[in-house]
Amino acid sequence: MSRQELTEKITAIKRARGLRWRTVAELIAGGTSPIFVTAALFGQMRLTADESQRAADIFGLSPEEALLLTEVPYRGSLPPGPPTDPLIYRLHELVNVYGTTLKALIEEEFGDGIMSAIDFEMSLDRVADPKGDRVQLTLNGKFLPYRRY
Amino acid sequence: MSRQELTEKITAIKRARGLRWRTVAELIAGGTSPIFVTAALFGQMRLTADESQRAADIFGLSPEEALLLTEVPYRGSLPPGPPTDPLIYRLHELVNVYGTTLKALIEEEFGDGIMSAIDFEMSLDRVADPKGDRVQLTLNGKFLPYRRY
Amino acid sequence: MSRQELTEKITAIKRARGLRWRTVAELIAGGTSPIFVTAALFGQMRLTADESQRAADIFGLSPEEALLLTEVPYRGSLPPGPPTDPLIYRLHELVNVYGTTLKALIEEEFGDGIMSAIDFEMSLDRVADPKGDRVQLTLNGKFLPYRRY
Amino acid sequence: MSRQELTEKITAIKRARGLRWRTVAELIAGGTSPIFVTAALFGQMRLTADESQRAADIFGLSPEEALLLTEVPYRGSLPPGPPTDPLIYRLHELVNVYGTTLKALIEEEFGDGIMSAIDFEMSLDRVADPKGDRVQLTLNGKFLPYRRY
Amino acid sequence: MSRQELTEKITAIKRARGLRWRTVAELIAGGTSPIFVTAALFGQMRLTADESQRAADIFGLSPEEALLLTEVPYRGSLPPGPPTDPLIYRLHELVNVYGTTLKALIEEEFGDGIMSAIDFEMSLDRVADPKGDRVQLTLNGKFLPYRRY
Amino acid sequence: MSRQELTEKITAIKRARGLRWRTVAELIAGGTSPIFVTAALFGQMRLTADESQRAADIFGLSPEEALLLTEVPYRGSLPPGPPTDPLIYRLHELVNVYGTTLKALIEEEFGDGIMSAIDFEMSLDRVADPKGDRVQLTLNGKFLPYRRY
Amino acid sequence: MSRQELTEKITAIKRARGLRWRTVAELIAGGTSPIFVTAALFGQMRLTADESQRAADIFGLSPEEALLLTEVPYRGSLPPGPPTDPLIYRLHELVNVYGTTLKALIEEEFGDGIMSAIDFEMSLDRVADPKGDRVQLTLNGKFLPYRRY
Amino acid sequence: MSRQELTEKITAIKRARGLRWRTVAELIAGGTSPIFVTAALFGQMRLTADESQRAADIFGLSPEEALLLTEVPYRGSLPPGPPTDPLIYRLHELVNVYGTTLKALIEEEFGDGIMSAIDFEMSLDRVADPKGDRVQLTLNGKFLPYRRY
Amino acid sequence: MSRQELTEKITAIKRARGLRWRTVAELIAGGTSPIFVTAALFGQMRLTADESQRAADIFGLSPEEALLLTEVPYRGSLPPGPPTDPLIYRLHELVNVYGTTLKALIEEEFGDGIMSAIDFEMSLDRVADPKGDRVQLTLNGKFLPYRRY
Amino acid sequence: MSRQELTEKITAIKRARGLRWRTVAELIAGGTSPIFVTAALFGQMRLTADESQRAADIFGLSPEEALLLTEVPYRGSLPPGPPTDPLIYRLHELVNVYGTTLKALIEEEFGDGIMSAIDFEMSLDRVADPKGDRVQLTLNGKFLPYRRY
Repeated sequence: MSRQELTEKITAIKRARGLRWRTVAELIAGGTSPIFVTAALFGQMRLTADESQRAADIFGLSPEEALLLTEVPYRGSLPPGPPTDPLIYRLHELVNVYGTTLKALIEEEFGDGIMSAIDFEMSLDRVADPKGDRVQLTLNGKFLPYRRY
Repeated sequence: MSRQELTEKITAIKRARGLRWRTVAELIAGGTSPIFVTAALFGQMRLTADESQRAADIFGLSPEEALLLTEVPYRGSLPPGPPTDPLIYRLHELVNVYGTTLKALIEEEFGDGIMSAIDFEMSLDRVADPKGDRVQLTLNGKFLPYRRY
Repeated sequence: MSRQELTEKITAIKRARGLRWRTVAELIAGGTSPIFVTAALFGQMRLTADESQRAADIFGLSPEEALLLTEVPYRGSLPPGPPTDPLIYRLHELVNVYGTTLKALIEEEFGDGIMSAIDFEMSLDRVADPKGDRVQLTLNGKFLPYRRY
Repeated sequence: MSRQELTEKITAIKRARGLRWRTVAELIAGGTSPIFVTAALFGQMRLTADESQRAADIFGLSPEEALLLTEVPYRGSLPPGPPTDPLIYRLHELVNVYGTTLKALIEEEFGDGIMSAIDFEMSLDRVADPKGDRVQLTLNGKFLPYRRY
Repeated sequence: MSRQELTEKITAIKRARGLRWRTVAELIAGGTSPIFVTAALFGQMRLTADESQRAADIFGLSPEEALLLTEVPYRGSLPPGPPTDPLIYRLHELVNVYGTTLKALIEEEFGDGIMSAIDFEMSLDRVADPKGDRVQLTLNGKFLPYRRY
Repeated sequence: MSRQELTEKITAIKRARGLRWRTVAELIAGGTSPIFVTAALFGQMRLTADESQRAADIFGLSPEEALLLTEVPYRGSLPPGPPTDPLIYRLHELVNVYGTTLKALIEEEFGDGIMSAIDFEMSLDRVADPKGDRVQLTLNGKFLPYRRY
Repeated sequence: MSRQELTEKITAIKRARGLRWRTVAELIAGGTSPIFVTAALFGQMRLTADESQRAADIFGLSPEEALLLTEVPYRGSLPPGPPTDPLIYRLHELVNVYGTTLKALIEEEFGDGIMSAIDFEMSLDRVADPKGDRVQLTLNGKFLPYRRY
Repeated sequence: MSRQELTEKITAIKRARGLRWRTVAELIAGGTSPIFVTAALFGQMRLTADESQRAADIFGLSPEEALLLTEVPYRGSLPPGPPTDPLIYRLHELVNVYGTTLKALIEEEFGDGIMSAIDFEMSLDRVADPKGDRVQLTLNGKFLPYRRY
Repeated sequence: MSRQELTEKITAIKRARGLRWRTVAELIAGGTSPIFVTAALFGQMRLTADESQRAADIFGLSPEEALLLTEVPYRGSLPPGPPTDPLIYRLHELVNVYGTTLKALIEEEFGDGIMSAIDFEMSLDRVADPKGDRVQLTLNGKFLPYRRY
Repeated sequence: MSRQELTEKITAIKRARGLRWRTVAELIAGGTSPIFVTAALFGQMRLTADESQRAADIFGLSPEEALLLTEVPYRGSLPPGPPTDPLIYRLHELVNVYGTTLKALIEEEFGDGIMSAIDFEMSLDRVADPKGDRVQLTLNGKFLPYRRY
C-alpha cells in the first residue's frame, strides 16, 4: 500500500464516519496543531509511534498501515503544474503575485537568507467580520541567513 | 516602456540612492501597507494618481511612467515553472506540501468556497526568538462561498 | 472509489438508461440550474444531502457514493495542457484570443478587480436562427474589487 | 513593426491621452461592438481600411501601421501556460471546471458538434446588484454539427 | 469500460480475426467513408444506432459497448506533445513547416477565417507512381469567415 | 540578419506594396507551386539563385539577404506548443483527431512505412459550394517502406 | 495485452531463461540484424509471420501475442522529455551538441534534404582498444532530397 | 558578444564568401575532423589558440572573438523540446525508437556502463548507392563501466 | 514485476521488519558502500548474483525478483520536473545555483571535460557540530577530458 | 544593467585579461572560498561593500555595477529544464539517480529533515590518481529537522 492509497483510505473512512479533521487531530495528538496532524494523515508529515497507534485505532488501520504513518513521506501533495482546484490555486496565485515583493521586503529586514519551510509552523483562523468572515493563515518560519564560507 | 522595464528602472534608482522599500512606501502612501505599495512598484498593484505623483518625485519618473503606475498591471511577478530563487521557492513548496491539508481544513471550517486573493491583505513581521528571529507572514482573505444557482 | 470513478459510473448508468442530464438534474434539484447539478455529477460541485439521496436513488448508488457527492471535490475536469476535444478547445481559444481585451474592458468599466468565478452563475441557451441555431452561454459573476490595505 | 509592438504603441498613446476603449471603439466603428474593435486594436481581429484610417487619425499612426491593422493577425493574446493575471485566470478556471459539463449539455441539446468560435459574438454588461454589481459575459456562437461523410 | 478500452478491445478482435478496417467500415456503414467509420471505432467519431449494432455484431460487443459507440467521444487520439510515431509525426511536421504559409495563402484567397475541422471531410488515396506509389490525403473543409459584430 | 527577420521584412514590404503571395510566387518561379515559393519566403524552403535574384528585385533585398534565401533554413514556422492561431490550430486538431486512424489505414493499404514529408507536395484549392465555398488541401507524399536489415 | 505489456513479458522470460538478445535474434531471423529483431521484440519494428512464430516458440507466447508482434507498432520507446537513463541520455546529448553541425555538413555534401530514418539501417560493434574497448554505432540512411514542386 | 552571436556572425561571413565548412575546417585545423572544427565554430567545442587565430584570419574576427573560440562553451545547440528541423528531428527520432534496444545490446555486450559522449568521435560519409546515395554516421565512444564502490 | 514494484516490495518489507538500510547493505555486500547497495535496492544500480542471493534471503524474494536485482536498471529515481520532496529539492537547487560556477572552476582546473557520473563514487557522513550536526556528501568522479579528433 | 548582463561583462573582461577565477577570488576576498566568490560574480551570491569595491577595481566596474554585486540576487543560474551542458548535466543526473537513496540514508541517520542549502558550504578538489585525476566535490550543510508544532 502506497502512502497515496493510505491517504485515500483514511479519507474514505473519515467521510463514512462523519468525522472532522480537527476532532481526529485532537484525538491523535492533542496539543499538536491540527494542521500538522492532518498533514501527516495526508502523507506530508509523519506521526510518532504512539500517535500512529491512535490513528490506527480511529481508522481501523492494519499494523503495516500504522507503520507507514510513522515514516518520512515523499512530500508534495499536488499534481504537476499550477493547481486546478480554485482554493489551492489562490495560494499559488498569491506566491506568483507577491513573490518578488516578499523577497525584497524580507531581505531588506533580515538580510540575505530565507524563511525556513522546515523550522516552520502555520496556523489557520477564522476572523469574524460583519461583511463576511475571513480566513487567516499565519506562516511562521525561522530566518536562515546564507552562510559565507 | 513596459511595466517590467519600469520595475527595473525603479529598482536601479532605489539601489543607487540607497533607499529602503519601507521608507519609499511610507513616503508614497503613509498608512498603506508597505507590502501593497512595494507590490505596486513591482508591477503587481496600482497606485492612485497622488501616490504615483509622489513616486515620480522620489524616483524622477516621467509623466508617462507615472501614468503607468496608476494602471492595472498584467499580474504575475515570476517566470513560468517553479521559482528557482530559494526564498520564493520555499513559499511555493509550502503551497505544494500543505495544499490539500489547507483545502480540507478551510472547507471543514467555512464550507465550500475559497479564501479570496482579491479581498485580501497580508502583513510581514519579525518575531524575535533567542534561537534566531523568525519571519511571520499573515495572509488574510475574505471567505467566498461557492454560489448555488 | 474516487470522484473520477464515480463520475464514470454515473455516466455509464446514465447512458445505459438513456437518461438526459437535464431530466436528471430536474429530478435531483428542481429549480437549481442543470449546469450546476450536472457539474456536481461530474465532480465539480457538491450536492446537498437530500439532493445526493435523490441522485443515489436514480443511479443506484451506495451510501458511500452518495456521501462522496456531498463532499467538496478537488476541482478541475480536464487533463493538463490545452484541451484536445474540439468543443472544449473552442472555449479555451476564446479565452486566449479575447483575454487581454476582456481584461481591458472590464477594468475600464469596473476598476481594478476580477469577475468572481465563485460568486458566479452560468446559463446555456439555444437561440433559434434561420441560418443555423446558436449556442448562447451567459457568464455572470460578481465584480470583486482589489482591496487596498 | 510587429503587431505586438503596435498594440503596445496604441496602448501607450491611449494611456497618455486618457482615452477610454469604448470611446475609441465608437469613433473607429460606431455600431460595431467595442469588444470586436478593442480586440482588433489588441492584435486579435482586423479592421476595414476605413476603420483603420480613423484609428490612425486617433492614435497618430503611420500608413504602415494603419495597414497592419487591416491584416489578419496571428491570433493568441496570452503567453503559454495558464494565464497568471487573476482576471484572465478566472476565465481559464471556468473552462477547466465547467468544460466537461458544457460539452455534455451542449451535445445533449444540439447533437455532435461545437459552438463556433468564428461565427461568434460576445457582449459584456454590467448588471446592477445591491450586493455588488456583476460582470456579465454573453458568448454566442453558431452551432456547427460534425459532418458525416 | 472507457472509450479507450473499447478501442483496444476492437483492435484486438480485428487483429485476431484478420479483418481489414476498410472491410469492417463497409460492413458497418457502406457508402460512408472508411476514414469516418474507422475514426469512430478509434473513439473519435460516433456511429448511429444501426451502425453501432452492426459493429457490435462484427466484434461481439455487449449492448453497453455498442451504446458507447453512439456517444460523442472526448476527442483526441494522441498522447500530449509531438507524436513519437514516425508516420503520425510527419503530419505534425507538415503543420509546423507549412503552418504560416497555409495561413497566408488561405487568407489571401478567402479572407479572414478558417478551414472548418467540423464541416470537414477527408479522403485517402494510393497514387500509382513508377518511382514508388504515393499516399494522397485530401482535406476538404468549409471556409468559415470570422463574423464581425 | 536572421531568417526570421528576413521573413518579417519581406512580409512588411509585401503589405506596403499591396502585393499578393500568388503574384509574387509567379514572378519569382512561374510554374512552381505558390505554396513552395511562399514557404521559401517564409523561411521554410530555399530558392535557387535565379529565383532569389528575382525575389531580391521585387522586394529590394540586399545581396546578403538574397543569399540567405538560397540557404537551407532551420525549418519550423511555429512557436512551441499547440498553435494559438485558430486557422493553424484546426490543422493541428485534425492531426490529433485523425492521427491513429490515418496510421491504421495507410499501413493497411501500403504496409509498414510512412508518407514522406520530404518527397512531398501539396496544393490548395477553392471548391465552390452553394452552401459556402470550401478549402481543399491535397497532401501527396511518396510512401516510404521501413527497410528491413 | 498491449505491446508494452508484451515487451515486459518477453523481457521477463528472457531474463528467467538467461537468454541473450543476440542469440534470440539469430534464432528468430538469422541473417537479419540483431538490432532490427531486438527492436521488434521491444515493440519498435514488426516481425514476419514466420519470425513471429519462432519468437512464440522461444518465449511461449500465445497466438494473440504472436500476432501482435507482426503488427506495425506505435513507435517510440521512451517516456516524454530527455531520457533519464545515462546510456540513452548520452545519445540524446550527442544529438543536442552535434545537431546543427550535422545539419550543416550533410546539407553541404548532399544538398537540401535529410538522412532517412525509414530507409535506414544501423549496426553496433565493439572496437578493441588497449585503453578500453569502444562502442561503435554506424547509422546509415538514404539521403532524401526535398522535392521541389 | 555571446557565443551564439559569434556563431551567427561566422555563419553570415561564411555564406557571404561562399565558403564550405570542410574547406574552412581544413584551413583551421588540417588533420582534425571537420565535424570537430565545425562544431567548434558552432559553439559546441573549443579551438586551440593557433586554430582560433587562423579562424580569426579567415573570418576577420576581433581578438575578443578569437578568444571566445578558445573557451569551453556552454554546450547545447538546439532550442528546448524535440527539434523542429526535419534533418535534426530524424536523429532525435532514431534515439527515441532505438533507445531501449541499444541499451539492451550495449549492456549485453559490454556490461553495465555507457558509451562515452566525451571520449568520443564521429565521422560522416557519403556511401554511393545506385538507388540513391546514403548518409553514413559513425559514432565511436569509449565504453565506460559503472564503478562499484 | 517491474523494478519499481520490486523497490516498493523491498521497502515495505524493510519497514515491517524494522531494518536499517545500512545494516541491510552490510549484510548484502560488506565492504561495499551502503550508498551503492541501497541504490541497487532502489533500482538504480545492479547487484552481483551473490549479493542478490543474500538480498533475496533477507527480503524473502522469489528467484525472479532476485534475478531482476542483477539486471542493469533503466536509471532515474524521480518523477519528471523539479523534485517536490524538500530533501531532494535542496540538491536540485544546489545544482541550479552553483551549476555555472562549478563548470567554470572545474574547467579552469582540469581543462575541457566533465566529472564522470559513471566512474564515480559518493559518501555520506555526519559531521558533529555544536550548533547542529551537519550532513556531508562527498562526490568523487574521474575527470574525463573531451577528446579531440 | 541586469545581473545577467553584469555576469556577462565580468566574464568578458576576465577572458580578455586572461585572469583565473581563483586568482580573482583571492584578490577580492582572500580567505573566503573561491566557490563562494565566483558564485557571487556569477550572480548567485552577494559580496560585501569592500569586496565589491575590489571587484570593481579589478574589472573596471562602474559604481552602479559595484552596488549590484552587493545586492541579493534572484538566484538560479540555469535555463529551465534539464541542463544541456554535459558537465552540469552530470550533476543533474546524479541527483536524479541518487535522489531517493540519499533521502533514505540521510533520514535514517538524522531523522526527518533536510540538508540545508542555505547554511551550506562546498569545496572542490583535485584528487591525484594514476588512472586519471579525479574531481571531488564536498557538500556540507547543516541538518535541519522538521519542526513539530
